[in-house]
Amino acid sequence: MNFSYHQLFDFTKGVFEKMGLPDDEARQAADILMRAELRNISTHGLMRLPEYVRLWETKRITVTPDFRIVHETPSTALVDGGKGFGLVTAPKAMRLAIEKAKTAGTAWVAVRNSYHFGIAGYYSMMALEEDMIGFATTNANPLVAPTFGKEGMLGTNPIAVAVPAGEEPPFVADFATAPVSRGKLDVLAAKDEKAPMGVVQDYKGSITDDPAVLQKGGALRTLGGNPETGGHKGFCLTALVDIFSAVLSGANFGPTVVPTLSYVEDKTGAEDNGIGHFFGAMRIDAFRPASEFKKDMDRWIRAFRNAGVIEGKERVIIPGDPERESEQIKMKEGITLSEKSFEGIKKVSEKLAVPLPFDE
Amino acid sequence: MNFSYHQLFDFTKGVFEKMGLPDDEARQAADILMRAELRNISTHGLMRLPEYVRLWETKRITVTPDFRIVHETPSTALVDGGKGFGLVTAPKAMRLAIEKAKTAGTAWVAVRNSYHFGIAGYYSMMALEEDMIGFATTNANPLVAPTFGKEGMLGTNPIAVAVPAGEEPPFVADFATAPVSRGKLDVLAAKDEKAPMGVVQDYKGSITDDPAVLQKGGALRTLGGNPETGGHKGFCLTALVDIFSAVLSGANFGPTVVPTLSYVEDKTGAEDNGIGHFFGAMRIDAFRPASEFKKDMDRWIRAFRNAGVIEGKERVIIPGDPERESEQIKMKEGITLSEKSFEGIKKVSEKLAVPLPFDE
Repeated sequence: MNFSYHQLFDFTKGVFEKMGLPDDEARQAADILMRAELRNISTHGLMRLPEYVRLWETKRITVTPDFRIVHETPSTALVDGGKGFGLVTAPKAMRLAIEKAKTAGTAWVAVRNSYHFGIAGYYSMMALEEDMIGFATTNANPLVAPTFGKEGMLGTNPIAVAVPAGEEPPFVADFATAPVSRGKLDVLAAKDEKAPMGVVQDYKGSITDDPAVLQKGGALRTLGGNPETGGHKGFCLTALVDIFSAVLSGANFGPTVVPTLSYVEDKTGAEDNGIGHFFGAMRIDAFRPASEFKKDMDRWIRAFRNAGVIEGKERVIIPGDPERESEQIKMKEGITLSEKSFEGIKKVSEKLAVPLPFDE
Repeated sequence: MNFSYHQLFDFTKGVFEKMGLPDDEARQAADILMRAELRNISTHGLMRLPEYVRLWETKRITVTPDFRIVHETPSTALVDGGKGFGLVTAPKAMRLAIEKAKTAGTAWVAVRNSYHFGIAGYYSMMALEEDMIGFATTNANPLVAPTFGKEGMLGTNPIAVAVPAGEEPPFVADFATAPVSRGKLDVLAAKDEKAPMGVVQDYKGSITDDPAVLQKGGALRTLGGNPETGGHKGFCLTALVDIFSAVLSGANFGPTVVPTLSYVEDKTGAEDNGIGHFFGAMRIDAFRPASEFKKDMDRWIRAFRNAGVIEGKERVIIPGDPERESEQIKMKEGITLSEKSFEGIKKVSEKLAVPLPFDE
């Protein structure tokens, strides 16, 4: 099923408006989800709409949150998202970081009482037009087992960093710190394919290739796998994202995150302060003249793009290149939704009486 | 060969004094190397002394550098280390970050024209006594191949983050972003053992278990290994450390680092602006009251330390715990040097006429 960007954008904006978001916020939320679709990160695109609607229906998310700066210094702020959509709270928080960085040189904003914010890369890229490096992380449903641990206690906790370049397009790293995302596992399961060995473990902690293992009490493993191949470093990384996003903000951390997934049992008994995000913006010229830096980033990017490759591979891929190329293609040729995504938005359409703006 | 902390400290300080460092700087440099020994990271301890002496002998490093703040804003500084020892430049730069964070809330210092700075963890931990989160990274000799790449183009680029806790000891993550360090490979090779499959590749880019492969034109792979198991995320991580440490500072980045290892060929033809570091300090109370945060960090640490484990494992290890325990033991029971470390310091002792302060 292939649709134009504008068809899907209008539908998505309509859904958020129907839930009660004002025009500008609905536009912002739709823009973030559509950017995921364009960038071929469909696990964070329209596939998420039913989950957002469910959180709104069950009143875990409000459309009239009290976005509040709890505390601030010249280079920091703590924001309480007031249990609004992450897609509304997060862009405001990132903009706050950018504004503060204009004066202080760099700035960091921790957010609590928020929810799933879509692709982390969106926020990091907001900094690019200001000649800043942008930084975004979040914690999430506990699905990743710490090294030696039996149960999922950490989210797939993504890190996104966007770095401006000169003539070259920017360097945009945006990656879940777990070896694969839960979305990817769902895709493998739907295709009846196996998971790569070493990325998931069953409910006893034994390594398995069953991609549906999260629904059976299993867990994702950390990046790097076993300690011999560096899995304890992956644990450090995912843990740090949890600490910066959730402990520094006072959101629910690690195993105390109140799950938003139907198959993750709520064993927390904890007060729900939502999940947490952490945003940063660093003015390039707070360190070096931006023109010098950008020339060096161009050199960096070209050195890696033109590097010698192993047999059978075309080139070293610069982070952000595939996603940017995908955006250009899908903007022209349209967006193909998976059956699962389509089924999801069809149900949302019926539930909220927002017409699917296209023939089935 | 077992020696007391103080014997080795005095010898090491003596070596730096003999090269011409003033008393306080020699003490500082010795403290960093000895901390690595105490923390059982002997690959960054006295084993490095011969390399430091060689860089000083060949005049790549000077003992009278011009440590210069090139540019600054309220929350940033760019430092030119003037080609001094990393062990002298780095602590000054980290202290600058801490001082700036006192006013601005957070602060970041990029450093160029520096050299190997020992364990990154040392600098991150300097922030702890100020109730700050400390952050330290550096780039290094190009030994890590990017995903699909054939040659080593990035350093093992460590990340260290130290986070204060309350009743619990601090969380201290300090890890090379490559799956294993070159030091560990050397140890495996010396013992005639194999490297774990997937962490190194030979000169053609084929996976091998030969731990001596770096000396034969091979390379380390990124954390996560193949793309199916997340190796491209490891590439992002190691690349980001290179960009923050070296491009933001104007040091030599990635493949343009002028090697300090005898077996890495200098193919750069580049001007030598040394390697780069990146330091950060974040005041906890720039976000939340430190007492609240510390209580939550205690909860975080206990949740993970007491988590259910897979069969045969004792507990989930909190980053920093093993190193802290090692410090306590070695301070009491002494430090056992490997044959390689001892041979190294013996040669240094003879060359610089600094007596080994113990019977052989």
